[in-house]
Amino acid sequence: MKVLIPGSFDPPTNGHIDVIKRSLELFDDVVVGVVVNPSKTPLFKPEERSEMLEQIFKDNDNLLVESFEGLLVDFAYKHKVDAIVKGLRAMTDFDYEFQMAQANYSLAEFETIFIPSSPEYGYLSSSMVKEIHSLGGNVSGLVPSQVMERLNDGK
Amino acid sequence: MKVLIPGSFDPPTNGHIDVIKRSLELFDDVVVGVVVNPSKTPLFKPEERSEMLEQIFKDNDNLLVESFEGLLVDFAYKHKVDAIVKGLRAMTDFDYEFQMAQANYSLAEFETIFIPSSPEYGYLSSSMVKEIHSLGGNVSGLVPSQVMERLNDGK
Amino acid sequence: MKVLIPGSFDPPTNGHIDVIKRSLELFDDVVVGVVVNPSKTPLFKPEERSEMLEQIFKDNDNLLVESFEGLLVDFAYKHKVDAIVKGLRAMTDFDYEFQMAQANYSLAEFETIFIPSSPEYGYLSSSMVKEIHSLGGNVSGLVPSQVMERLNDGK
Amino acid sequence: MKVLIPGSFDPPTNGHIDVIKRSLELFDDVVVGVVVNPSKTPLFKPEERSEMLEQIFKDNDNLLVESFEGLLVDFAYKHKVDAIVKGLRAMTDFDYEFQMAQANYSLAEFETIFIPSSPEYGYLSSSMVKEIHSLGGNVSGLVPSQVMERLNDGK
Amino acid sequence: MKVLIPGSFDPPTNGHIDVIKRSLELFDDVVVGVVVNPSKTPLFKPEERSEMLEQIFKDNDNLLVESFEGLLVDFAYKHKVDAIVKGLRAMTDFDYEFQMAQANYSLAEFETIFIPSSPEYGYLSSSMVKEIHSLGGNVSGLVPSQVMERLNDGK
Amino acid sequence: MKVLIPGSFDPPTNGHIDVIKRSLELFDDVVVGVVVNPSKTPLFKPEERSEMLEQIFKDNDNLLVESFEGLLVDFAYKHKVDAIVKGLRAMTDFDYEFQMAQANYSLAEFETIFIPSSPEYGYLSSSMVKEIHSLGGNVSGLVPSQVMERLNDGK
Repeated sequence: MKVLIPGSFDPPTNGHIDVIKRSLELFDDVVVGVVVNPSKTPLFKPEERSEMLEQIFKDNDNLLVESFEGLLVDFAYKHKVDAIVKGLRAMTDFDYEFQMAQANYSLAEFETIFIPSSPEYGYLSSSMVKEIHSLGGNVSGLVPSQVMERLNDGK
Repeated sequence: MKVLIPGSFDPPTNGHIDVIKRSLELFDDVVVGVVVNPSKTPLFKPEERSEMLEQIFKDNDNLLVESFEGLLVDFAYKHKVDAIVKGLRAMTDFDYEFQMAQANYSLAEFETIFIPSSPEYGYLSSSMVKEIHSLGGNVSGLVPSQVMERLNDGK
Repeated sequence: MKVLIPGSFDPPTNGHIDVIKRSLELFDDVVVGVVVNPSKTPLFKPEERSEMLEQIFKDNDNLLVESFEGLLVDFAYKHKVDAIVKGLRAMTDFDYEFQMAQANYSLAEFETIFIPSSPEYGYLSSSMVKEIHSLGGNVSGLVPSQVMERLNDGK
Repeated sequence: MKVLIPGSFDPPTNGHIDVIKRSLELFDDVVVGVVVNPSKTPLFKPEERSEMLEQIFKDNDNLLVESFEGLLVDFAYKHKVDAIVKGLRAMTDFDYEFQMAQANYSLAEFETIFIPSSPEYGYLSSSMVKEIHSLGGNVSGLVPSQVMERLNDGK
Repeated sequence: MKVLIPGSFDPPTNGHIDVIKRSLELFDDVVVGVVVNPSKTPLFKPEERSEMLEQIFKDNDNLLVESFEGLLVDFAYKHKVDAIVKGLRAMTDFDYEFQMAQANYSLAEFETIFIPSSPEYGYLSSSMVKEIHSLGGNVSGLVPSQVMERLNDGK
Repeated sequence: MKVLIPGSFDPPTNGHIDVIKRSLELFDDVVVGVVVNPSKTPLFKPEERSEMLEQIFKDNDNLLVESFEGLLVDFAYKHKVDAIVKGLRAMTDFDYEFQMAQANYSLAEFETIFIPSSPEYGYLSSSMVKEIHSLGGNVSGLVPSQVMERLNDGK
């Protein structure tokens, strides 16, 4: 079974890493799709985000990281995945993720399956990491060391 | 009983159409109020949105479409409606709509009544339609044909 | 427009009274349906609950109180109502009420419309009234005087 | 990948059938575990519930139906499944299912993955089916024909 | 500042212990009120629950454990506490706890303040502990050792 | 016990005032921290917001109003507060506030305690006040008189 884990990963957090790791144990092949959104100004460029994810998972043969622009279902179709996998955190995720799952099913009959986030990462998000870091806070417990290094490199 | 259904309708979706149709069966007169919000850049101009709604409901004598700027309660007062009607979709709607209902009651004692969305439209929104369309996806199952034509006319 | 407000009303609270009063202002005719549930042991018999509601609304010509057993949609059909009206309180109501609304629509195409509870009654329920009263607490601010009298009559 | 779909299935609804069907397409092997709960009085005996599920899926070679008593994780361990699969309906499911997912992970490191219910079954439950049927309502649109026959056989 | 932490504590879980410990650091004096509910059959008698809590917190001079029957506000009044403290876990707690907070305020103007549960205990409850234990599961990671011993003593 | 109540207060609403008043009764000392967010354009400057709050609470000796930029936990540390206090309104607050509470605990072990908003202010927010006022609506029932005067002074 081959699955796609889409996300902005700007930057990847320990919560993202947890969902990817658990997916690598459950499924045969995992594609991590880094969303390129031209209407937003990210902290890290798509290629930087892909590089960080590749570094973190450099020992996993069954994982592919690739950035994409456009419809998620087109990207899922290109990679012939069987399903989309999303981590499901707190309540507010639920509705939005259900909406997207239904849209992707009605657009191209792609199933979305949800993996509940581990409790300790349940309230962690990229935007919270960026906000705390920009205010001078220490986010080393919230992101992998590979991300921490880049955050410290002048960002 | 005369009711007001306010909304941005940018563009009208099958979910909006469902709520308006069911209101036309329940109530004597229905005013559809197209919100003009100067601080946002819509995809369709207010007059375009009104035209689409008028085309879709051209056979209904008890429906009036009109755009408005300013306070909802002033518009409701002008049309002497008995209540405001809102479709209620998923969880995230709930809180915001309750807040607005309470505000409108405290401002001018206008009641808001909620009609639960049909399950198949429960997760449909104008912004989702616009996002999918802008990425090249096919939204013909999510909007009326009159909206689809305009989306295809260079938008 | 004729509506049905169903409920156990064991006993009627100020929250119930608020929803009924507002419905009497909005709709032409209101039927209050007192649910008889043989599998539960109520505090008040159905006829007592009906009597209390009739006393409270004795000056309203357009209101009928009647108890019923069996399917809500059969009772709604018998009274030729146009819609079912439910007060919508806090979050936990939402899901259950949506489920019932959808069931009643799929069974007999009866629409359910929701009226948001007034904030001061937003967390009030019959079971809370019964629990506080049984523990010796004063619930006179939570129920109409007609209910308070019956609660004091040996209950 | 082999998964376990646990549930009471008293009786199986169209919502359950939908989740099982979609799981059969996604995963290599599916075990449906019918929960035996000695402290509850079910409408159908565990063997009846298993029979109905077996009839419905009699053409699927990669599905096994088996009832079980005791800890879910013990049953999952016995069948060497890779994960537990749960359909996720409306809001109220969410919290309870998260709680159970976390408990099962902490007890035996079994992952739970969620499949969002199809919108049309989003508010359907076995208890609603039983309640409507017991009040004389027609539930033929809510359950498979094999279940409908048994409901009509004197239940 | 003196606070009251009410609960059934049947049995106390690591989640309860976490809330009490954090309250002991925040407030001058803490009263733990063990609710006696004659209409329920608990696993542990009120005096057993009190004993377990006293053992766990035997080194804390500013904590008092006492069981009570009747209205929470009467017990709060008797102990002259300044506020009621409740741990707030997942979503489903929220509504019920808000309802009780409002009831206790309207009955006797007692404030309720909420302490968010630590993420790792966010989905833990006494009833889950009892269910897993009764099915033969190992709950030693979910309750204090003093509770584990009693659970093993023939329960 | 000394607590910090952080917020944008742009402008302070009756809901904010209610939470501060109740905190003044519960805790020995209250610091109100007015958040300065350089990336947003507020309606009122931080010093205006502080002035309004100081006017409203000019008779309270145990209250200090101060604006701050940067990490909340740094500001909390500077004032040696024992805990952060947040008013908790409707559902949508819940998740965001839990997320921030956990972040602040993991950053600097600061506890966050929640006070449920009074029902009549449960759906009130600064942004709603600003929106209604900008559209010509009367918000005098939603904000203190000191705020109303400033809103009328050309804003």
